[in-house]
Formats: sequence, structure tokens, C-alpha cells
Amino acid sequence: MGDTEFVIEPGRQDVVMVRMFDAPPDVVFRVVTDPELIPRWWGPRLLTTRVDRMEVRPGGQWRYANVDSGGREYYFRGVYHDIVVPERFVRTWQYEGTPEEVALETVTLEAVDGGTRYVAQSVHQSVQARDAIVRADGPRGGRESMDRLAELLTTRP
Amino acid sequence: MGDTEFVIEPGRQDVVMVRMFDAPPDVVFRVVTDPELIPRWWGPRLLTTRVDRMEVRPGGQWRYANVDSGGREYYFRGVYHDIVVPERFVRTWQYEGTPEEVALETVTLEAVDGGTRYVAQSVHQSVQARDAIVRADGPRGGRESMDRLAELLTTRP
Repeated sequence: MGDTEFVIEPGRQDVVMVRMFDAPPDVVFRVVTDPELIPRWWGPRLLTTRVDRMEVRPGGQWRYANVDSGGREYYFRGVYHDIVVPERFVRTWQYEGTPEEVALETVTLEAVDGGTRYVAQSVHQSVQARDAIVRADGPRGGRESMDRLAELLTTRP
Repeated sequence: MGDTEFVIEPGRQDVVMVRMFDAPPDVVFRVVTDPELIPRWWGPRLLTTRVDRMEVRPGGQWRYANVDSGGREYYFRGVYHDIVVPERFVRTWQYEGTPEEVALETVTLEAVDGGTRYVAQSVHQSVQARDAIVRADGPRGGRESMDRLAELLTTRP
């Protein structure tokens, strides 16, 4: 299992996360767009994830709840835009606690050596907004999700 | 009537458009979110604009057609996200000819000297995507819309 790389250049609005998976793009795409499988890989290991809504089509909405051990819930949501199976999807992201902050995520799946090069690029509204998320250790959640997704893929879900 | 300013910094993903209007934010906000008024200011003067859909609420969709003198139609669409009347709204943008390209627009209205400082910031997925739009004279359409909006506002719509 490889490692997750981040590209976070100074003065830019985006965060790029890159990960190699030992499964072809059609499998990775199917897994990451399947609402039933989201709770098995999405988010930090310490939290439970529940899918309230996940309409994988242009204009379709998604909403996940992260639930901590005390039962507190934290909601993330957004809207799917362009979807090209199994190559790419674009969706927006909002944490419901700060709805004024919206990010635009473009996920690209490329076939490489029988596996998949997964690139998730998130563009934020400002450099400040991006930097605040990086300071708050936002990439850690992404890295943990990528590790969990790699583990899930080894089970041939 | 003032001029429209653009901030387009090298190596960044965004275009910022700034315009002063001689009307308070509540009036400007009402006008720019009213589907009935969109055809009177949105887009280049040489084209007709038709509103096919405009649901100004989080998750609501919008779709405008630009129609040229030969009857050809060009569609733009997206989804409204955060909306705070009369201060701000966030929405996505896609030209239907290139659905893989999505931009995230944040419009901010600030009361200044009895008028409104209108700031529309558009973040694109990449510097290349932004630069291509700038090269294709994208800001010209924005400037023309801002001039038309200023004219419309003088009629106290």
C-alpha cells in the first residue's frame, strides 16, 4: 500500500491529494460512488459516517454525517456536477457549520500499471480559506480516508 | 456610472470582478436574484438571454440560454449554494459545452456611501482553465453585464 501525497503550493487556492490504488479505475470509481460503501472508508477512523443523501448525477446532492463517540453529529454536504464514469467526477463541498465556505472538488481516476492513480483536487474560495483548512489538519482526514479506501479495495468489495 | 475592475493575478485560479452601483445592497441583491429581470442585464448586449430555471436557494439549480441572432442557443447552468440576503451568494457555473469545467462564484454586496460595492469572485479548477477563459475574453461578458445592470438600476426596477 502506498502513501498519500499532497501538493499544497503557497499562494494558491487548492489542495491536491494523490494516491495509487491496486485496483482498476472502474472498481475504484464504483466503490467511491456507492452510498453503501461510504461508511466503510470515508472520514477519520475515530468517527462513524452515515450517508443521509448521495445522488451521483449532475445536480444531485450528497450529505454525510460524521458521528463521534458522544453521539455528536457533524454534517458535510454538496452537489455533484460533471460525472464521467470511470474517469472523473466534480462535486462541491460544504461543512454545514460554515456554509459560506464552499470548495470545488475534481476527482480524476487514471489507469496506471493495472492500478489507479486517484487525484482529488479541491479548490477553495480563497488562499486564506485553503490555508485555514490546512492549518486545521484537514489533509489528515483525507489521508486516513485514502488508507481506509486502500484497505477496503483489498477485500474486493 | 463607474467602471468595472478586474483582478486577475498571475498563477492564481480566480478572477475577481468589482463594480460600484448607485443603489443599496438590498435593491441590487433583489435585482440580481430575480429571474424576471435577468434577461434585462445578464450577458452580452448582442445576445438574448432566457431563464430556463433559477431556484435561488441552497441546492437550487439555475440555467440560462444565450440566444444569438441566428437562433443558436448557448446554455449556462449551475447550482446555488450559500445565500445570505442581501450580503452574499455562492453558486457554481458551467458552460454546457464543456461540463467538465466548473467554476465557483462568490458574489458579495457591501454597502458603501449609499451604494453597493459588488464583488464577484470566480474560482476555476486550474490556472490553465482560468487563463483560457481570460484569453477568450470572458471578462468582457462580465463587464457588459455590469454596465447593463447599472443602467437597469437607474430605472428603479
